[in-house]
Amino acid sequence: MDASLVLERNGTLWIREGRRVRRGDLVAVGRAEDGSEGIYVHSLDDSDDEGEFRFMTSAVSREKPIDYLLMAQMLLDERDRGGYPIWVTGPALVHSRARADMVWFIENRFVGALLAGNAVAVHDIEASIFGTTLGMTQSGVASSGGHGLHMRAINQVRAAGSIAAAVKAGIVANGIMHALVTHDVPFVLTGSIRDDGPLPEVITDNIAGQDAMKKHTTKATMAILVATALHAIATGNMLPAFVTNDDGTLRELPTICVDSSEFVVSKLKDRGTHQAFGVVTNAQDFMHILRLYVEREITARATPNT
Amino acid sequence: MDASLVLERNGTLWIREGRRVRRGDLVAVGRAEDGSEGIYVHSLDDSDDEGEFRFMTSAVSREKPIDYLLMAQMLLDERDRGGYPIWVTGPALVHSRARADMVWFIENRFVGALLAGNAVAVHDIEASIFGTTLGMTQSGVASSGGHGLHMRAINQVRAAGSIAAAVKAGIVANGIMHALVTHDVPFVLTGSIRDDGPLPEVITDNIAGQDAMKKHTTKATMAILVATALHAIATGNMLPAFVTNDDGTLRELPTICVDSSEFVVSKLKDRGTHQAFGVVTNAQDFMHILRLYVEREITARATPNT
Amino acid sequence: MDASLVLERNGTLWIREGRRVRRGDLVAVGRAEDGSEGIYVHSLDDSDDEGEFRFMTSAVSREKPIDYLLMAQMLLDERDRGGYPIWVTGPALVHSRARADMVWFIENRFVGALLAGNAVAVHDIEASIFGTTLGMTQSGVASSGGHGLHMRAINQVRAAGSIAAAVKAGIVANGIMHALVTHDVPFVLTGSIRDDGPLPEVITDNIAGQDAMKKHTTKATMAILVATALHAIATGNMLPAFVTNDDGTLRELPTICVDSSEFVVSKLKDRGTHQAFGVVTNAQDFMHILRLYVEREITARATPNT
Amino acid sequence: MDASLVLERNGTLWIREGRRVRRGDLVAVGRAEDGSEGIYVHSLDDSDDEGEFRFMTSAVSREKPIDYLLMAQMLLDERDRGGYPIWVTGPALVHSRARADMVWFIENRFVGALLAGNAVAVHDIEASIFGTTLGMTQSGVASSGGHGLHMRAINQVRAAGSIAAAVKAGIVANGIMHALVTHDVPFVLTGSIRDDGPLPEVITDNIAGQDAMKKHTTKATMAILVATALHAIATGNMLPAFVTNDDGTLRELPTICVDSSEFVVSKLKDRGTHQAFGVVTNAQDFMHILRLYVEREITARATPNT
Repeated sequence: MDASLVLERNGTLWIREGRRVRRGDLVAVGRAEDGSEGIYVHSLDDSDDEGEFRFMTSAVSREKPIDYLLMAQMLLDERDRGGYPIWVTGPALVHSRARADMVWFIENRFVGALLAGNAVAVHDIEASIFGTTLGMTQSGVASSGGHGLHMRAINQVRAAGSIAAAVKAGIVANGIMHALVTHDVPFVLTGSIRDDGPLPEVITDNIAGQDAMKKHTTKATMAILVATALHAIATGNMLPAFVTNDDGTLRELPTICVDSSEFVVSKLKDRGTHQAFGVVTNAQDFMHILRLYVEREITARATPNT
Repeated sequence: MDASLVLERNGTLWIREGRRVRRGDLVAVGRAEDGSEGIYVHSLDDSDDEGEFRFMTSAVSREKPIDYLLMAQMLLDERDRGGYPIWVTGPALVHSRARADMVWFIENRFVGALLAGNAVAVHDIEASIFGTTLGMTQSGVASSGGHGLHMRAINQVRAAGSIAAAVKAGIVANGIMHALVTHDVPFVLTGSIRDDGPLPEVITDNIAGQDAMKKHTTKATMAILVATALHAIATGNMLPAFVTNDDGTLRELPTICVDSSEFVVSKLKDRGTHQAFGVVTNAQDFMHILRLYVEREITARATPNT
Repeated sequence: MDASLVLERNGTLWIREGRRVRRGDLVAVGRAEDGSEGIYVHSLDDSDDEGEFRFMTSAVSREKPIDYLLMAQMLLDERDRGGYPIWVTGPALVHSRARADMVWFIENRFVGALLAGNAVAVHDIEASIFGTTLGMTQSGVASSGGHGLHMRAINQVRAAGSIAAAVKAGIVANGIMHALVTHDVPFVLTGSIRDDGPLPEVITDNIAGQDAMKKHTTKATMAILVATALHAIATGNMLPAFVTNDDGTLRELPTICVDSSEFVVSKLKDRGTHQAFGVVTNAQDFMHILRLYVEREITARATPNT
Repeated sequence: MDASLVLERNGTLWIREGRRVRRGDLVAVGRAEDGSEGIYVHSLDDSDDEGEFRFMTSAVSREKPIDYLLMAQMLLDERDRGGYPIWVTGPALVHSRARADMVWFIENRFVGALLAGNAVAVHDIEASIFGTTLGMTQSGVASSGGHGLHMRAINQVRAAGSIAAAVKAGIVANGIMHALVTHDVPFVLTGSIRDDGPLPEVITDNIAGQDAMKKHTTKATMAILVATALHAIATGNMLPAFVTNDDGTLRELPTICVDSSEFVVSKLKDRGTHQAFGVVTNAQDFMHILRLYVEREITARATPNT
């Protein structure tokens, strides 16, 4: 989204991010949005003409219902047409018990790629080895001595050489990273300034990390952003607003943003990811109900109408 | 909880709220909590001795897992032992599609009484008659002209004379109020300063409203407070901290408080309902998953172990 | 705002709230907003035509700057023209040290009337008598035995007969209620279901409470709503959207809504108070800076330009 | 805080972060916190013995007063004794008008070092060159075409070679970065995965970024964390819990954490920065009032008691 239109010497046009533009590149420049400078900007018009007085017109609100059926159908449609849904998640997904649900989505081929930070993998692997996340048990109790367990988990993976190696060696025997490795689903783990560790696969340089994420956002046909402000906005910055259908027409790239507060979704929209659809809820509960609706929809589609 | 110990003339002791204490009543007075003034204050000690360094020790956090299985088991145990679980809900429960789940809990005898404000009944009845809540469709879209529908719903009930009459007349044919009336589950609707309307059964005087709620909190053996700061704190003020078991021993009165933010639960605890257990999530999702776990637990209990 | 247009027998037109409409009244009815049914609905158009791509377009956000100078000028203009600014506040104003600033605004004739709940007066009077609010000292520490002090404060006022009497008797010697009484600024205290007490002047019936508030919202030329969801929405429901200028033209009734989160302001707008201007901050800090800007503006206006 | 105790070959003891521990290092290992394994863990005990029933005991709450006077005195004391207060800020500080106040703190020697992300510098420099932040004017209005201005600001600095060079060339003529450069106050800008740009001085590798931050946290005698979850937790991870006084005794390192919600402060504490003192408010308002109190305290200290 935040990129430049560059004319290559061989006559082709490329969309290139700022950090990739080089001295001498021919960049399309214009400020008018009406085409008068030869550049035409188009977005879908979501205004309407239904009268001035209405209630509940806010863009994002915890008071609005969540349409899980629609999201379930979109995920199944994506899988049917061979789409590439990218999932971008924060560590809250692993703190809570949504971990089993995330594994289910990976195993059932609803995940094209996972983009996340070091913490998601650290907590997931701590859960696999020690049964805790940040030293907290599954029932939410802080355990004595538990504050060091994530460091021990990191150390075991570093000793194995990589997450993939730790999975193959049986050190990491279940969970999200295990499912990704065993099902050959690509993942990108990028570092942040607050990381402990980091784990071996984590890309600690942000420019390199953005390039690694970009490879997947370019292919994305859907995006599900759960419980992460940092990575949601990072992904939003790279995500195309539209996907090309088989018949050449465009459709908006479906972007679901899940967070506990309205703030993250508003922030995402305020930074240009206008198509984002906000779901204000707890990450654990979102994952559990979404899976439930997907399971029901699979059953419904498998049942012939009589 | 916020009450006085009064010695009656006939020698019995009563716990009486401030507004019910009369001139001449003999009230136990003391500030020391160590028994030195003849009054001994006891609460459960939740401190522990597991070392000073731990992570994730905050009392309430959206980062903590939610133990739906435990809550489901508690609800079933209450039903089995003939308990009196009171539900206290805010209108968010009806805005979203948790309405169907609330009906399920009523129909399946998990609700001893419902305590709520005018808005819960108004939105529920608007949904029954017009299919919208505050003019918003079930998919969350603000409908043109919809901002007046809740007033039309109120008018229809007022014309019928009461909610119960509107149910019997078939005007209100489904939903929470319909389920309460048809299953003879008592409800208390109290007014607030921001009400439109109000509906006929709504008690507009707060003192009278508190007395009506008090009749149910006295009998309560469990409390589920969903998406309401006002009524949650009102109920917390009246709720005993303990229930007497059949064998005369005491157990803490289980109190679940569900809200989108940590703030309401902290506020509830800050005002003395120390036993409240906080669930930070969306009301719709809470209801849906809780029902799911209760259904699973019913199946599990019905299945003989082999 | 939420009211009906009623044609009286003597030919005059009145705006009347639902609870005041009587059988036989002639009420203007129409659903079309284009005037085709003889009723023409008008609101200010805030749309614009400045291109589709912009950042930071959300209606309310803590990331947006707060224009204290503008608010200070509006308050001074209101005072100069003899306006009637109504203040609607929650107890957070008294918990924190904004209490002294609120007193300053009352003493300096920036408050036409104060509308609030029982708790505002209870905490203010507890602070006056005991120096605490809900047992918490001014530096925010919970004091031992302090949880009973608000009840003792209520008892002292009840013994005096009224807040005004307690002020005159010197029991309440400073604070918000003291300033209101000694400066003859009217106040309305309405009850809520979670009240302890209540204090003598508190109107416990909500219908009567709405009528009492209505007397002031009708005269209002500006509204400042601080740290209260309940009373802000109650007031928003009654507040006209426009004020008539001396020359007969209309201007929007300036409505400032201050809260710690975006949610309350969005909720207020979602319920029809479209003109509300949101300030997302802490009530204490808002009051302190607003006062500072008003003081500076007074000095600036008093200084002749040279 | 999150580090290992390493015994060097020359017999000295070092505290070393995980990423700096090398194969063969002798690391102190122990899980018991009672000294039984030869390692004794000590922290200040903040428990008390003032009875079981109290209100308002939550650790962090927007309902608690903010003691600006105390914070102002601490800042002045730090300046008097030649302390090294580090400031860690998020971009909200620049979005809003707290920018001028931050400049004032730098110019008046209250800032030992500034630790922040790319965005703080980008927004600050956009404000200096174009008068907007993320295209939003100082009064909070989204300007047409403004969404590209932060990229133009970045481009101008990149063309100059560095922020320092841009300041010297007069391109950046005011603001936070200008004040830091002209007053020789060190700053560390670290990158994140969501950055546009980045600016020349930004350290894009997180390991290198942590090392750069560490140089300042080691010297820190006070920490002020404003409106940043990411950098606040990153700094908290590195910050010692205690400072050594001149007489060899220890005092807790004063750590102030300012955010719009209780959540960030709780999260910081949940990750081990137990000494953090939370201020729940808007960053702009915090900066403005803190400056006001510091100015008043300067005047008070300059005035001889008579």
